[in-house]
Amino acid sequence: MSDGGEIRIIGVEGIPEVRLGDDLASLIAAGIAASAGGLKRGDVVVVTHKIVSKAEGQVVDLREVEPSALAEQVGARWQKDARKVEVVLREARRIVRMHQGLIIAETAHGFVCANAGVDASNASPDAVVLLPRDPDASASRLREALGHRFGLTGDDAPAVVISDSFGRPWRRGIVNVAVGVSGMAPLVDYRGQTDPAGYELSASVLAVADELAAAAELVMHKLAGRPVAIVRGYASPLPGLPGTGRDLIMEPERDLFR
Amino acid sequence: MSDGGEIRIIGVEGIPEVRLGDDLASLIAAGIAASAGGLKRGDVVVVTHKIVSKAEGQVVDLREVEPSALAEQVGARWQKDARKVEVVLREARRIVRMHQGLIIAETAHGFVCANAGVDASNASPDAVVLLPRDPDASASRLREALGHRFGLTGDDAPAVVISDSFGRPWRRGIVNVAVGVSGMAPLVDYRGQTDPAGYELSASVLAVADELAAAAELVMHKLAGRPVAIVRGYASPLPGLPGTGRDLIMEPERDLFR
Repeated sequence: MSDGGEIRIIGVEGIPEVRLGDDLASLIAAGIAASAGGLKRGDVVVVTHKIVSKAEGQVVDLREVEPSALAEQVGARWQKDARKVEVVLREARRIVRMHQGLIIAETAHGFVCANAGVDASNASPDAVVLLPRDPDASASRLREALGHRFGLTGDDAPAVVISDSFGRPWRRGIVNVAVGVSGMAPLVDYRGQTDPAGYELSASVLAVADELAAAAELVMHKLAGRPVAIVRGYASPLPGLPGTGRDLIMEPERDLFR
Repeated sequence: MSDGGEIRIIGVEGIPEVRLGDDLASLIAAGIAASAGGLKRGDVVVVTHKIVSKAEGQVVDLREVEPSALAEQVGARWQKDARKVEVVLREARRIVRMHQGLIIAETAHGFVCANAGVDASNASPDAVVLLPRDPDASASRLREALGHRFGLTGDDAPAVVISDSFGRPWRRGIVNVAVGVSGMAPLVDYRGQTDPAGYELSASVLAVADELAAAAELVMHKLAGRPVAIVRGYASPLPGLPGTGRDLIMEPERDLFR
């Protein structure tokens, strides 16, 4: 076991274009077997949400979308595909900002992100990909199936993080974050702990699942065709109960930026 | 050279408590020599801002701070040290939110973060640590000194990222981000690129320097006493000109959340 002082991030090669009904765990397992020889106890498997959504059928054929008046208006004014705007509005539980055709919205899950998580598909110009309906449940299913495949069962099953890339206010660029988590503590709470010098740490809760997702993006990136990465050697610095991606969503009553 | 399909994140051990006037590059170089045997071409060295600030004297002795009336008021109302509140207000160029004693502020650099980047010191209850005055310049100096130390000069010198942990609206927990960058492109712009299947990528600019900082936090974490990490094997997916941490700050005119 690592003490957490060194981590490897291994890009998983050989995962084909994923389609509705594919056995995603089998495709990922084959890629992991070929790229890394298998999984080890303590591994975290980071999976880009797009292949999860495709396997689950969270894809909308724009040819079947009838845009609302608002979607038509936004589309015409900002040269956007009104059908795609319509899908974004349907995925939104709340519009946080709408500015020059850019829509920042809260999804049914509670995530606040551009276009309510609706992405262009790389498989067809007439399709858009939504977020998985329940990314934590998707992560949990993948965890169990991958663990089973590699002989890691119960608590030894790999943690699974399903990622998407989100923008952030005040900073340029998007970064990978965790939208689904299974088998690990997504937050590490240092409050009340003392550092190596014996001083009490100031209030700090680290979103380690988001940091794992960000780390994985560095090998999974969009040109590489690697939608999955293994993070090996990560050791949670404090014992923590496993949680979910929902734990990473700020409670509305504590949110200063609603 | 790696093709970027596997990355190692190596925590650097043995860096002592840093004090004003310490030769930080020498301390880091000694730790790198002991922990990793040296640096290789393409390495990124991530350094937590706290040791940079301490070496540069960006530390305030609270016993010498006279709180303003506002700082006294906020401190009394929310049971905070009014002297620390005063330092936060002095570091702030603009207050973004002030709520129940929590201050989200824009720093002179343009970063928007809690307490304008003012941290408790782990070295003394009467001291607070500020952000480095010019984190990009600090990164550039460390880059040159570390490159010189390990025989990597000119373009071969290691990239350096100076990190801090920031909160984000809408999500719980803080994550490491880059506040200073030297020797690498902090943003990777995929617009106009095609993915392996030949489809044009939708608008996406990845903040890879933030992702590198986040990745490093997974081994540098607060209990481990490792304020530095090496990221080895990262390959920028597109040629990009080196930039700075300032490039990661959203331009006010494009910022929907001012």
